[in-house]
Amino acid sequence: MAKITILGAGAMSSAISIPLIKNRNKVNIWGTEFDKAIIDKLKSDQPHPTLNMIIDANFFYSDQLAEAIEDSEIVIFGVVSSGVRKIAQMAKKFLKKQIIVNVAKGFDNGQTMVEVLEQELPDLPKVVVAGPSNAKDVSQSQNTTVVFASSDVHAADICKKAFQTENYSIEISDDSNGAEICSSLKNVYGILIHSAKTDNERSVLFVKSLEEIGIFAEACGGKLKTVYGLAGAGDLYLTQWGRNGMLGKMIADGKKPSAALEELKAKNITVEGYAATKAAVELAKSKNLNLPLLESAYNLLYRDQPFKI
Amino acid sequence: MAKITILGAGAMSSAISIPLIKNRNKVNIWGTEFDKAIIDKLKSDQPHPTLNMIIDANFFYSDQLAEAIEDSEIVIFGVVSSGVRKIAQMAKKFLKKQIIVNVAKGFDNGQTMVEVLEQELPDLPKVVVAGPSNAKDVSQSQNTTVVFASSDVHAADICKKAFQTENYSIEISDDSNGAEICSSLKNVYGILIHSAKTDNERSVLFVKSLEEIGIFAEACGGKLKTVYGLAGAGDLYLTQWGRNGMLGKMIADGKKPSAALEELKAKNITVEGYAATKAAVELAKSKNLNLPLLESAYNLLYRDQPFKI
Repeated sequence: MAKITILGAGAMSSAISIPLIKNRNKVNIWGTEFDKAIIDKLKSDQPHPTLNMIIDANFFYSDQLAEAIEDSEIVIFGVVSSGVRKIAQMAKKFLKKQIIVNVAKGFDNGQTMVEVLEQELPDLPKVVVAGPSNAKDVSQSQNTTVVFASSDVHAADICKKAFQTENYSIEISDDSNGAEICSSLKNVYGILIHSAKTDNERSVLFVKSLEEIGIFAEACGGKLKTVYGLAGAGDLYLTQWGRNGMLGKMIADGKKPSAALEELKAKNITVEGYAATKAAVELAKSKNLNLPLLESAYNLLYRDQPFKI
Repeated sequence: MAKITILGAGAMSSAISIPLIKNRNKVNIWGTEFDKAIIDKLKSDQPHPTLNMIIDANFFYSDQLAEAIEDSEIVIFGVVSSGVRKIAQMAKKFLKKQIIVNVAKGFDNGQTMVEVLEQELPDLPKVVVAGPSNAKDVSQSQNTTVVFASSDVHAADICKKAFQTENYSIEISDDSNGAEICSSLKNVYGILIHSAKTDNERSVLFVKSLEEIGIFAEACGGKLKTVYGLAGAGDLYLTQWGRNGMLGKMIADGKKPSAALEELKAKNITVEGYAATKAAVELAKSKNLNLPLLESAYNLLYRDQPFKI
């Protein structure tokens, strides 16, 4: 039993509270300024608007960051990837020796989330959550297996004890670089794969995408084992049922990429792979990587150029 | 331009004639005794009943095996896996120095298709076609990339020249054992994966299935590179749109496995993974392999025991 703070009240960060609460941890959920309406609901015992369930935790508004973090042993970053740096800077003065857990998937300013956290909170151990885990299944206690990756395996073990339940299984890995790269790139390649029109083509793209993710991960100090495990292949497989896959399928159905993106934006659906594609292309360039499918994803999303295998 | 005979007139064997014809090879299609109605149609320029297209080749009935094979440089086995041995025995006396290509996926009597062909036709070079390739996409010249695997890379190269078109790409591999194991087992694990009810669970099963296929392939002299390439990961990915995936999904929707199998049988839909599961379990036992998911697939299909991750 531990005291745990979740930063962010979106679907994934809220879903992850369910195994933690099941394990009788004391859970605080802190909402950003954009989460006010969610915190309002949760505080008055109404269901979470996207998960559609009541959550038995303590809730804090964005101006209550100190109270939310105070006394916690584990602090989970579950905000959108573009918000991680800012929240880390805000939280810094309240953090002493907590373990930092990252759930966000994406890049910021050419850095992975763990690199951002390393820069902003250099003295604290960091654990990355990767692998196929959609919020709905996690919140409904459906069987899920994820990877907790950290260069500090002891910290990952402490987190595993707090999180693991009968339905939420955890594999420990020491490859946080590889896990982060997989988590960020699966969104990018997920869009590309599902923009293909035929079964054979999607299957080839799935394999070729993993090859490129492997090159990328190795260039960032990650391991191929991670890429072909849950963090890479598993999470890339899952994209077919997620928002990035949805964008790809809209393109496959004939929508212009820019129009499909506009349509999703109008529905308030964030497709993390869009920004991640640009960031990944830049990062790949800085590392002199030649990744034709990544280029294709960029041309598809930023230049409306249809993809040809 | 080569003379090529395809044995079997089912969907896959007929589909593969399309790139061959496009490349101006002289193509003979020979039907088994079960293919009589198909050959009747094809001979009278009617569309192939499952592919729904006219095929511009020469057609032969089951009693015309000698004429069908005569002068051919490449002979393709495209019959169901349980028929390969018998057809090989029948064809033997007409075969001189042809290259044998295998398209069938499955086991026979504890042997892979290439082992069966090795036993029955020991003196001829053999090439295995593996990777994600459904008949409909191939017949419609949709982009497809497959693996031609052979211990005789020269033979694989000759075949590549005959088959490769703008839309039908071929990667050469020397790992025919690995490719065969992947092709046979993807049907087995495809059923299991799609019998899972949730997105997270299917994604985990996909990764864990590849791990078991890797253990199996290595025990048979195959390589992990094959398992994580088109022959393994690519073809396993494709099962979600095939007959084996369909059986899995019927089980996920609540059908008892035996009832689902009966229902498909009544519709004349052969699910190769059913027989392959039993054969794979026996082969794994003979090699002292401990493969819990394979056991689960067996218990699901042969004992109606629901699978729990």
